[in-house]
Amino acid sequence: MIDTIGFDGDDTLWHNESLFSMTQDRFRTLLGHAADPETLNRRLLDVERANLRFYGYGIKGFVLSMIETAIDVTDGRVSGHDIATLVAFGKTMLAHPVELLDGVEAALDALAGRHRLLLITKGDLFDQESKVARSGLAERFAAVEIVSEKDAATYRRILDRHGVDPRRFLMVGNSVRSDVLPVLEAGGHAVHVPYHVTWAHEEAKPPADGYRRIDTLRALPALLEEFRP
Amino acid sequence: MIDTIGFDGDDTLWHNESLFSMTQDRFRTLLGHAADPETLNRRLLDVERANLRFYGYGIKGFVLSMIETAIDVTDGRVSGHDIATLVAFGKTMLAHPVELLDGVEAALDALAGRHRLLLITKGDLFDQESKVARSGLAERFAAVEIVSEKDAATYRRILDRHGVDPRRFLMVGNSVRSDVLPVLEAGGHAVHVPYHVTWAHEEAKPPADGYRRIDTLRALPALLEEFRP
Repeated sequence: MIDTIGFDGDDTLWHNESLFSMTQDRFRTLLGHAADPETLNRRLLDVERANLRFYGYGIKGFVLSMIETAIDVTDGRVSGHDIATLVAFGKTMLAHPVELLDGVEAALDALAGRHRLLLITKGDLFDQESKVARSGLAERFAAVEIVSEKDAATYRRILDRHGVDPRRFLMVGNSVRSDVLPVLEAGGHAVHVPYHVTWAHEEAKPPADGYRRIDTLRALPALLEEFRP
Repeated sequence: MIDTIGFDGDDTLWHNESLFSMTQDRFRTLLGHAADPETLNRRLLDVERANLRFYGYGIKGFVLSMIETAIDVTDGRVSGHDIATLVAFGKTMLAHPVELLDGVEAALDALAGRHRLLLITKGDLFDQESKVARSGLAERFAAVEIVSEKDAATYRRILDRHGVDPRRFLMVGNSVRSDVLPVLEAGGHAVHVPYHVTWAHEEAKPPADGYRRIDTLRALPALLEEFRP
């Protein structure tokens, strides 16, 4: 029996990676004179990964990594105008409307009566708070937890704070790496809802079993029925 | 009688603004060919303030604002090399050792027996978590709260979560705007411990009375005695 359900935010409740992906398309177009698309993708990912320890996750770090990559691939000859364009890309992302995924509200409504719902989202505090507010979903959750990393210790701390037995906790999210593996490690249940794009850094091999996978949040209420005694 | 004491982090427990101030000195030197120091300070502050709604507080937003200002004051002629230097300034700041202010550990030790201590710090989640960890002070606090803005609603939410009566809560910090005024508004007590530099955006007129001011955290334990019945 599940009494508490945790939901990831980015790419589970609202679109996110598609916005990064679209921005990265524009980045490749802007720097197309300096390197081919594959090189730009690889160099950017390398820079992003190397910068995680400085910046953590989020749009501001992404913009700084695009700027750094632009300088690298042009041997420092990138123009101030192009850098300003990258800064503007970031502001466009930060101000972008929060677009809910299909079926999110109906699924939350269907589950709210029987379960306590938590929003557990990773990333930049300011940006995530802004997205939660703009999503219009905040009132549907008993609590919103914004964390810098999702590992088993993070989930244990959150469950402990809310007095939740891991065996009665189910996490729902699009990332095997962040929403499935660490939850299983912490003794909870997990449902994977893949998004159509995954940031290369979030890619992880799913476990052989021990979790469920659905194509859309619309399927979640029916799946919860299976957990009932 | 005070049972819970909240401490601000930046410029209350550890040095912070001095690092921004030092970086801004370097920024003025780097861009000295384009504008005089006062103009650079004013333009940067204007850009930072306009960007707060996009970036919130923290080093990454500061770096993006330095980059934007550098492009502005050079009419886009800033070199990729100089932009790379600004990005490097940011990484230096993010990796900078956390240096505790004088007397912090002794004050926390003296207060820990009789009071529950909370760390309530504003800024970038990833950066603040990293600073808390590197400060070596995390274990001394019952809880660490990292928030994106410190207003009366923020303090009410935190006190409510920890079951603290505002009348038995005392906040200690260097910012009148963030650590004193909103706490008094929420019905709590406040002690102002000024730092030798204050970011222009944080400057605020102190209230006429209703709070205490000390020069160093060393004076805090004695001041707490005054609150005892």
